[in-house]
Amino acid sequence: MTAKTRIAILGASGYTGAELVRLLARHPHVEIVALTADRKAGETMADVFGQFAMLHLPRLCTIKEVDWSKIDAVFCALPHATTQAVVRDLPQHVRVIDISADFRLEDPALYREWYAHEHQALEQQKQAVYGLTEFNRERIAKARIIACPGCYPTAALLPLVPLLERKLIDPDEIIIDAKSGVSGAGRGEKQANLHTEVSEGIHAYGISKHRHMPEIEQELTKAAGTKVAITFTPHLMPMNRGMLDTIYVRGVNGATAEGLHGTLAQRFEGENFVHVMPFGETPQTRHVRGSNHCFIGVVADAKTGRAIIISAIDNLTKGASGQGVQNFNLMYGYPETTGIDMLPLFP
Amino acid sequence: MTAKTRIAILGASGYTGAELVRLLARHPHVEIVALTADRKAGETMADVFGQFAMLHLPRLCTIKEVDWSKIDAVFCALPHATTQAVVRDLPQHVRVIDISADFRLEDPALYREWYAHEHQALEQQKQAVYGLTEFNRERIAKARIIACPGCYPTAALLPLVPLLERKLIDPDEIIIDAKSGVSGAGRGEKQANLHTEVSEGIHAYGISKHRHMPEIEQELTKAAGTKVAITFTPHLMPMNRGMLDTIYVRGVNGATAEGLHGTLAQRFEGENFVHVMPFGETPQTRHVRGSNHCFIGVVADAKTGRAIIISAIDNLTKGASGQGVQNFNLMYGYPETTGIDMLPLFP
Amino acid sequence: MTAKTRIAILGASGYTGAELVRLLARHPHVEIVALTADRKAGETMADVFGQFAMLHLPRLCTIKEVDWSKIDAVFCALPHATTQAVVRDLPQHVRVIDISADFRLEDPALYREWYAHEHQALEQQKQAVYGLTEFNRERIAKARIIACPGCYPTAALLPLVPLLERKLIDPDEIIIDAKSGVSGAGRGEKQANLHTEVSEGIHAYGISKHRHMPEIEQELTKAAGTKVAITFTPHLMPMNRGMLDTIYVRGVNGATAEGLHGTLAQRFEGENFVHVMPFGETPQTRHVRGSNHCFIGVVADAKTGRAIIISAIDNLTKGASGQGVQNFNLMYGYPETTGIDMLPLFP
Amino acid sequence: MTAKTRIAILGASGYTGAELVRLLARHPHVEIVALTADRKAGETMADVFGQFAMLHLPRLCTIKEVDWSKIDAVFCALPHATTQAVVRDLPQHVRVIDISADFRLEDPALYREWYAHEHQALEQQKQAVYGLTEFNRERIAKARIIACPGCYPTAALLPLVPLLERKLIDPDEIIIDAKSGVSGAGRGEKQANLHTEVSEGIHAYGISKHRHMPEIEQELTKAAGTKVAITFTPHLMPMNRGMLDTIYVRGVNGATAEGLHGTLAQRFEGENFVHVMPFGETPQTRHVRGSNHCFIGVVADAKTGRAIIISAIDNLTKGASGQGVQNFNLMYGYPETTGIDMLPLFP
Repeated sequence: MTAKTRIAILGASGYTGAELVRLLARHPHVEIVALTADRKAGETMADVFGQFAMLHLPRLCTIKEVDWSKIDAVFCALPHATTQAVVRDLPQHVRVIDISADFRLEDPALYREWYAHEHQALEQQKQAVYGLTEFNRERIAKARIIACPGCYPTAALLPLVPLLERKLIDPDEIIIDAKSGVSGAGRGEKQANLHTEVSEGIHAYGISKHRHMPEIEQELTKAAGTKVAITFTPHLMPMNRGMLDTIYVRGVNGATAEGLHGTLAQRFEGENFVHVMPFGETPQTRHVRGSNHCFIGVVADAKTGRAIIISAIDNLTKGASGQGVQNFNLMYGYPETTGIDMLPLFP
Repeated sequence: MTAKTRIAILGASGYTGAELVRLLARHPHVEIVALTADRKAGETMADVFGQFAMLHLPRLCTIKEVDWSKIDAVFCALPHATTQAVVRDLPQHVRVIDISADFRLEDPALYREWYAHEHQALEQQKQAVYGLTEFNRERIAKARIIACPGCYPTAALLPLVPLLERKLIDPDEIIIDAKSGVSGAGRGEKQANLHTEVSEGIHAYGISKHRHMPEIEQELTKAAGTKVAITFTPHLMPMNRGMLDTIYVRGVNGATAEGLHGTLAQRFEGENFVHVMPFGETPQTRHVRGSNHCFIGVVADAKTGRAIIISAIDNLTKGASGQGVQNFNLMYGYPETTGIDMLPLFP
Repeated sequence: MTAKTRIAILGASGYTGAELVRLLARHPHVEIVALTADRKAGETMADVFGQFAMLHLPRLCTIKEVDWSKIDAVFCALPHATTQAVVRDLPQHVRVIDISADFRLEDPALYREWYAHEHQALEQQKQAVYGLTEFNRERIAKARIIACPGCYPTAALLPLVPLLERKLIDPDEIIIDAKSGVSGAGRGEKQANLHTEVSEGIHAYGISKHRHMPEIEQELTKAAGTKVAITFTPHLMPMNRGMLDTIYVRGVNGATAEGLHGTLAQRFEGENFVHVMPFGETPQTRHVRGSNHCFIGVVADAKTGRAIIISAIDNLTKGASGQGVQNFNLMYGYPETTGIDMLPLFP
Repeated sequence: MTAKTRIAILGASGYTGAELVRLLARHPHVEIVALTADRKAGETMADVFGQFAMLHLPRLCTIKEVDWSKIDAVFCALPHATTQAVVRDLPQHVRVIDISADFRLEDPALYREWYAHEHQALEQQKQAVYGLTEFNRERIAKARIIACPGCYPTAALLPLVPLLERKLIDPDEIIIDAKSGVSGAGRGEKQANLHTEVSEGIHAYGISKHRHMPEIEQELTKAAGTKVAITFTPHLMPMNRGMLDTIYVRGVNGATAEGLHGTLAQRFEGENFVHVMPFGETPQTRHVRGSNHCFIGVVADAKTGRAIIISAIDNLTKGASGQGVQNFNLMYGYPETTGIDMLPLFP
């Protein structure tokens, strides 16, 4: 029997941190050695997340207290803009799976524009590999730093990248009407996320201002080989987990909706976590809840000539921590589904 | 003191029927004389809707049992396709406010195509006036039969009709990504509408097949003076009341997003129930819950040149029964807000 | 036509404040002259509560900025412990309807025990009348200061007071298993009230420690003429509005469950807002949502000899602001239902 | 490597059936050979439960079509009263884990009283072992037929049986105020379970009439050695999964609340799935969601001398299918946690 990989989770008191604990505490090749939460240092995980009361986990500590000589890999689930300095100062032997946005934008100027400060770890950013697993396996396996995609980008890129790569859709005609569960907003104490403010109603937010937008455009531009600008409207849904992207596209070079469907079905055949539904069927977020799966459906809009592509993920799993574990498995040579093959929880 | 208008509500055991009772039982100029529900005849309203236990209402009866000589106006909240024969056979003195879809489509061929049977009251359909109140007041006031718009059409037409009438948007580039609460699906016993199947998740349904689509296209075509075909994707939301339409359009003839906003703001100035928010702000469905209000917001999508228009209504009130009462007030010369001026219920 | 009563609402940026605005903005005899929210002073109500965008309301100001010479009555919807100093310093001509807990406990020692500080307006507290409307109309009509009951006390006292007054139940055998919607916790930014923390789950909280407990015991003791100690377990429900009290009692002096039911039915006959259901039927909170109604049901538990009494209210309406307006109507001689006779919103 | 146990699931189109598939499809020692659903025979599991689209499962068939020679064990997730005839006619080599209520009541007269018909498999009922795992391991391991407890009984019996066995609480003073998620009501098309009827509100139902009541009393009577009659009030909660029992008891023979807590903590020490929280703390259903865990808390109610015991389970897992798999593991000598050690899903 081989030794386990010793990991730390930074930011264990947030939802993506808790999701990492849920997945990694049952991962057969992982030993959780350190859990950090600077403001909760000294507390137990059961204090901050009652659902872990039955586990024997290390007590929460500060990042400074971590003994990195005992850590092989670190999962960063810190708030955006706080990860980069931490990663910059890590010992070289520690491999990094970052769930935050800090290493996703490749262009420092673009980062500055959207985050309103200079990036503090430009060297490390150059090393970072974008962790959209299904499109980047070879580089992920060898990388030291993985920038795991955001939830909105994951849901949008999985169906769009293959179509742009093959030049089957018009890069100027992509509209993404995105709907997210509340857990994507984190555990911070914000009035806007109270049950009273979120349940029994819906609304759009951050139109043209959401930080996942340049990330999506960066990856679509790479896929298309030409500058892509999207229309992107995020909406907040009265549910905790789940993300649905309704994507409006126009086929080019003779591509029909059915053709786009065929391309996606072929591209993802054999994938463990990406499932293209029969043509004309569309997914429900509840059918991927708590799982690392992505369901994709394609429908024709006959009269207008558009195709409608709908993708569904769990924003905390495939859209964050689950994809992080998927990348971790690749990095350490474990079967890609290890620890993340649980089936969706419905109802 | 003038006599009250004596009304009947057909289909009082459904949600739009109950919504009519909620509004009309407190309407100062209305006397509810008959409530029908063929399968529940003999029961009290409190039996089928516990929230009315404190009211003194007529017992539920069959449609056949209604004494029409005592009725001035009838609200029809029957399932689609069952209203037309009833309305055909009504005495002439009875004025009709129909909440169902039966008299909305003007073209019998279009009706047949979407409802798969011949319309049974073509004479009456010719008399019917489309009850989108803000656009049709004069004809509504004099009409005998009002075909109240569906919920999706109400939310879409209020912002789109003024823009198409003024030729400010491209009629070939209208995408409506619509989100509805579950109450729109009615009180029928369907597995798909169980709490377990609907809560904590979202999904699209009926893409290109929803019967509100031809209704929207009919009215947009009239407004544009040219054939309009839309892309229309309805989604089911885990909430009871509320509808949000996210509408993607392109300005033409020099119209910017700000210009579209100005046009809408001007068009609805002074309206009691339609409120255009400041440019760049967008509405929440929970802020219109239980009320007859429609909130509209307009946002620019600078890079792509599109404008995003978002409208919010309560599907049971402005999207159904509330607009019915609004039309009724016009027909009988009551102030338009009578009985429907309650403020939204939030939280 | 008589002049309107000029009112101020203190604490208009909280949920009970917003509920007062919802009710009073449509009250035919009220003019809203001032709305305060110290931390939001200068903003409009539409800024803090989007649902009021269509109203013309005074801008939010600080309490200090209120010109009391223009105010006849003030509704206090401030956080607990902040009302008393404000009320102490008000000019004498201003009548006070307090929705907070500050004037509910009559015994200063009990207040100190539960709130951990000395009461700052003992003179005013002596004048305060407990505003459980159905039991105190004469004193309320003449009072200067009304201490409106808490939500849990309202739901518990309405059925229990008549039974204890008539010595029909054992005062040592009262168990109140109470369930509340989240809006009762207010609009404060607390992690515990996030959608993610509250939805799709339930839990008890504050057992034997909830501040509504001494208030209930105070009033039950008065009714019984003997010291009453209750078992009281509040639970937080994944819903915004609504409160259900499941109350376990034992009849004494020959009282059966059916007898208790008969007593309550007789006691509340003719009441506008309290409805005793047929024996054996029990209420749903959704059937009183958004209304000032209380529904009460009584069931026999044959084998054990207990009776189970269930009461349902909307915690923000009959449990707070609605009862406040009901008391206001009494104080000013308006019909008791003025402005609060809207029917429940279901679904 | 040993051969897998070949199983059939009867009633795979219901929620407990789907929960069995979720657990057993990932069970390392199980091969799912047959899935039945008489009315859906011929469809795939993906047709009836979209979340299983990525699995290769046998197509749904009728019970008659099952080839029992290829089945070692059968899980019955059929509606109540339909299981008994099926089990009666099974070949002897097939071991039975029944999730329905059919074999829970030992007294045929009691069964007749509550189910209004004669039991059709009295011979088999005599063989059935009550599957409350933590109290019956030896008999379960050897049994041919397991009657898995209902969800309400599981949540109530786990804390109450040890206390009654030790005569630490008064058997005449047990009040169970129970709250259940909607999934317990199954997937049947009932108006009462529509999202519109269930969300945003709560209510009690079936007081003194719920069929889980005699089951609880049967087991409590066995534990106490004396006839136990309980007060039992089930409530329907606006959530899908989760059950919370708030249990009011009185200590006897000198037992304090703290003493009761100590007894429970000791009794369940070392159990994998039953966790007694520190004295004074109480559980949340969301902290056991999707898992086989039961959390128990005990609080003192000082003034009245009562103790309040609160237990939380997921009604579909520990309250149904999870406990079924736990028993199955015992029957076949697998480690008890196999296939059911997933951590709770929160948020």
